[in-house]
Formats: sequence, C-alpha cells, structure tokens
Amino acid sequence: MRAITVIPGTSGSARLDEVPEPPAEDGEVLVQTIAVGVCGTDIEILSGAYGWPPPGRDRLILGHESLGRVLEAPDGCGLSRGDLAAGIVRRPDPEPCDNCAAGEWDMCRNGRYTERGIKQRDGFASERFRIRAEHAVRVDARLGLPGVLMEPASVVAKAWEHVERIGARARWTPRRVLVTGAGPIGLLAALLATQRQFEVHVLDRATEGPKPQLVRDLGARYHAGTVAEAGNRPDIVIECTGVASLVLDVLERGAPGSIVCLAGVSSGGHALPIDLGALNRDMVLENQVVFGSVNANRRHYQQAATALAAANPAWLARLITRRVPLDRWTDALTRRPDDVKPVIEFAT
Amino acid sequence: MRAITVIPGTSGSARLDEVPEPPAEDGEVLVQTIAVGVCGTDIEILSGAYGWPPPGRDRLILGHESLGRVLEAPDGCGLSRGDLAAGIVRRPDPEPCDNCAAGEWDMCRNGRYTERGIKQRDGFASERFRIRAEHAVRVDARLGLPGVLMEPASVVAKAWEHVERIGARARWTPRRVLVTGAGPIGLLAALLATQRQFEVHVLDRATEGPKPQLVRDLGARYHAGTVAEAGNRPDIVIECTGVASLVLDVLERGAPGSIVCLAGVSSGGHALPIDLGALNRDMVLENQVVFGSVNANRRHYQQAATALAAANPAWLARLITRRVPLDRWTDALTRRPDDVKPVIEFAT
Repeated sequence: MRAITVIPGTSGSARLDEVPEPPAEDGEVLVQTIAVGVCGTDIEILSGAYGWPPPGRDRLILGHESLGRVLEAPDGCGLSRGDLAAGIVRRPDPEPCDNCAAGEWDMCRNGRYTERGIKQRDGFASERFRIRAEHAVRVDARLGLPGVLMEPASVVAKAWEHVERIGARARWTPRRVLVTGAGPIGLLAALLATQRQFEVHVLDRATEGPKPQLVRDLGARYHAGTVAEAGNRPDIVIECTGVASLVLDVLERGAPGSIVCLAGVSSGGHALPIDLGALNRDMVLENQVVFGSVNANRRHYQQAATALAAANPAWLARLITRRVPLDRWTDALTRRPDDVKPVIEFAT
Repeated sequence: MRAITVIPGTSGSARLDEVPEPPAEDGEVLVQTIAVGVCGTDIEILSGAYGWPPPGRDRLILGHESLGRVLEAPDGCGLSRGDLAAGIVRRPDPEPCDNCAAGEWDMCRNGRYTERGIKQRDGFASERFRIRAEHAVRVDARLGLPGVLMEPASVVAKAWEHVERIGARARWTPRRVLVTGAGPIGLLAALLATQRQFEVHVLDRATEGPKPQLVRDLGARYHAGTVAEAGNRPDIVIECTGVASLVLDVLERGAPGSIVCLAGVSSGGHALPIDLGALNRDMVLENQVVFGSVNANRRHYQQAATALAAANPAWLARLITRRVPLDRWTDALTRRPDDVKPVIEFAT
C-alpha cells in the first residue's frame, strides 16, 4: 500500500512510499484511511526538527490527524465495519507510569509514551492502518470529512476540561473568553467556547482570508489588533500561538480569578525583559492561574466527538480549506497564507 | 481602651492610642484581645506604602492576625464566653460581587472588599474588638498563644486546598514538595505538607537561627542553596518569598504535571531577561500549572484550625520567636534576623 514516510531528523526526506500492509500487532481494528490532516508538528517533522522513527528503522509513516472507515473490527469492540473512526495518537509504554497505566497518557510522567506519526510508532498517512479498539474513537457518520478534525478537537476538549476543572477550585462564573490564534486549534477552541455560551473574542494577525468570517459565523468577535483591543480582562484565555510576546500580553491582562490555558508550543531561544515580580504580585493578589495543556486521552476524544457532532456541519467543513489528493500530497505540506486545515485525501 | 493606630500612607505615624470601645456595628461578638501577630503587610503599612483608613477617618487600627477570648456572644452563634477565637480579615462590600455574596471573598472579583487592619476597616490591635459571629472562628483552647497563627495558617490552608483541587483535574500522585521561604507562611506550608505525608523540602537563605531546626523537626529537609540543590523536580511548589529570580527558578524546575502555588507578594519594578518561549513550551509539553493564591475564606480558617490542632504544640510555640508586651509594641514592629513570628501581647 502507499504511505507518506519520512526519515525523522532529515529535512526533505519525505516521500510517497510503497510499504507492507499494516502489521497485526498494531491492533485488531483495520481502517481504510479517508484523510489525514496536516499540522505544524508534521511540518516540523518534515523539516528534520522533530520526530523519532520506530525502533530499528529509519523511516516513520507520517500522520497523526486521522479519519478512516472501519474495514474489520471484532464483535463487541464498540466499532463496526463501515463506521467512521479516528485514531488516538499517544500510547503508553509497555512499562507505563501510573498515569499512563490509568489511561491518562496525556499526563505521562516519564516521557516514555509513543505517538503515532510522531514518536516511535507509524502514523496514519497510509492507505490502511491497524489500531487497537481502545485507541480508536467512533466518529458521527454525518460528520463526513470534517471528522478528520477529531485529533485537534481532542486537544481543545482537554484544554477546556482542564479550564473548567481548575475553575471549579472555587466559586467562578466566567463570562468572557479570549482565544489567541485563529488556526485550527484556535477556531476549535472558539467553537467549544461558543458551545458553552461565553462571550468569545478571537485574536489573530490575519485581516484577509477565511479566518475573520469563520470567527464571526460562530457568533464570536474577531480582532486583528492587540490583546488590549481584543476584549478587556478576559476570564478565560486559550493561548494557541506560543508567541512569547503574546503569552506575556495575555498573562498581564486577565480578570481577577482568570485562567490562562497555554496550548501553543513555542520554540524558545529569545529572552524578553519581563518584570516577573509585578507579574507574580498580580497573579497572587488576583488568584490567577496559568497552565499548559498538551495531547488528549480517550475521554477527550469522546468529548471532541460530541462537540463536533453538535457543531454546524457547514462551518466545520469550511475549516478544511484544502483537500489534496494523495498523488499531490506535497502540495498539502506547503503552507499557504489562507490555510486553516489542509488535508490529504486517501479515499473518498 | 488602648490600640495601635496608624495613618495609612504616612510613614512613622503609628502610635499607641487611646480609642473608644469597639462600636456595636462591628458585630455582636465582643473579644478581649490576647495577641496580634506582626507580618510583612503590617511593616508595609507602617512604612506608608500600603493600607487605607476607614471612610471619613485618618487613622486605622492596625492588626489582622488575631487571637482573643470571647467576652460576649449571643446564644447559638457557635461561640461562647471564654472561647478562644480569631477574626477573619476580609469582609465583603455591602454590594458584593457574586463570589463575595457566596462567602468566597478571598476570590473577590471587583476589589471592593474591606480588610480588618489593612483596608478601610479597623484591625484587631486594640484591647477589645467586636466582630460578627460569621467572621470569627473558634480556636482549640489547648492551642493557647500559637492560636494567633490562625490567619497565616488560613492563607496556607487555602493554598493547599487550591493545589489539591487543581491537581484533581487529572490523575495525579504527587510525592515531592518544595517550599521556598522559611518564614511563618513557608513553615506553616511545610507543616501542612508533612501532615499530607509528602517528602518535603524547604529552601531559605538562613544558615543560622531557628529556621533550619524548625524545618528538620517537622521531618522535612532544609536547604540553604539553590532551587536545583533543594530537591529535583518537585511535584508541588509553595513559593512564599515573592523573589522574582526564585519564582523563575521554580517555574523552570517542576516535574511533569507540577503545580506551583505563588503565595509571596513581590514588589516588582525590575525586569529580568526571561526566555518565555522556552518556559511556555515546557509548561505546555509537561502540563504544568502556576497559580496565585491570596487571603482565605471561612472554610480555610476552619481548615487552619484543624491543621493547627493536629500539629505538635511545642513546635508551633517555637514559631512565635518573640512575645512583646503592648507597652513595648514598637519592638515587635522592628524586624530581627532570627524572627519567625513576633507577636504583641495584649492580655495573658
């Protein structure tokens, strides 16, 4: 079968490969790939800056944002032939930490997890893949192609779950949400915010392209200026850019009791002059919280499935700004200014 | 009666004053003051840098860390004549925010609370004070003078409650605790950590005086070096110094899933070069939390009462490093190198 493979650590090594059928040890559920989404992590792997091949091999099958149709599944496993399904990315080590052993591999304590398409385990960018039923999540059949958004939506669902659980440490009635960055994560974070009936503001640099209207069509407000202009003193911030100066801005502008979720991975390497004493004082006197959130476990994929099923299908479909057939796969891996989520289609 | 009063905003204005008996509108419970504790906030008020007088007056009665004996209390209010009691510091505005209205004035959203001895409401540094029963907390009679630690212990109890509630957002089995600063707040934070059976490390600059032995007598480890030397990758940090460089150090060294509670109020005004991108990346990839915590509500005072009652009375008594009689009150307000908690005694 065909698969997109890459030598992690080697820039420009990606190619459309012929590989063996997925091995039985990958799991009892066989899935025909419909599409894989492309995200910043894929671009980072292609550049040679990230990723690890499976043990004993040079090449890794790419792809961690999946949508497929079940070809084979054992009776009673929760999936049936013909179902739409998405694969969970992270898997615990055979000798798991306590959190991984309990299914909370998103909170892994020892870093010995694997990740499909990223870390030591083949991804989903092949015509077929196998997966254990416990690592596959059923996707509402009515969703169609936007079901490929399950993985980014799971990351956002985890972020929101943690915001709400942290918020429950005391009495809290948040009203105003600021999302920084209107990429797929930011737009999905805004979707989940509007589903919670908050007043939602989204800040991004784009003044053209699909992002402003996508935000407005959620009933949220779009801002292309500064954090200060994007809504006064938000109760909740979902920071999706990882841009250090923006992170600092949102840390300085939260409401009393505000919760800032850091969901954007930044590169680091540049020091800013920061009055950490003043920041500390404000955080203490106003009971503010900042937390980082990464990855998602099965519970969050299920929350994502519910959130996507409740969304406007036409709006979700517009997040997929490009559908690139497998034989033109390289097009999908080159960023364009108007991209929200490009996907590579394996089958229709 | 005698009271220590100060003109907030005016350095050097504190004096031992003759003032009227406490007014009935302060509350139905009349308390004879046994002692008030002195903390950094008092020193800040005495320096003119903090504090607000009651409306229409120049002078504020100082003192927010209280211990007294009930002289008068209505039947069925939970307090009886002869009980030891401490006063809660913060009170909601007559037009409270939602949180204040629900009794969570420590999470006030609009800043319109008042604070006894600090903000627009007379404190407890008078021979007698009045208070509403709902703002007074009974202290175990066996505690004696260390009951004056109720207020700082309530601040620490809130910090611990929030650590635990935030930690419950996901599966979490913390083991190692780092407390930075071995003042009263740090030592009480370490006490509550040992009551939770954690491996506890306390970091302070002191190499002499009572602090190292106070820490060791809790069964905790004392460190006078750097954060790196004070225990590798703590799961929980209670930061009690507010020193910006130390805050940065603890932010950079937490374990995966770690929770840092900022409990020290810093002055600000100095910028440090900080690689916020790298800090953000680590917080995201390791699901780390940083939060500020201030003040305490009635629930936390009750938790504090329980924690103090469960502590070794001899250890608690050693936190009170100086007992200064009222007629030598100025002595208590001058810091000494070996001070942990100086108190001013009003009655015995």
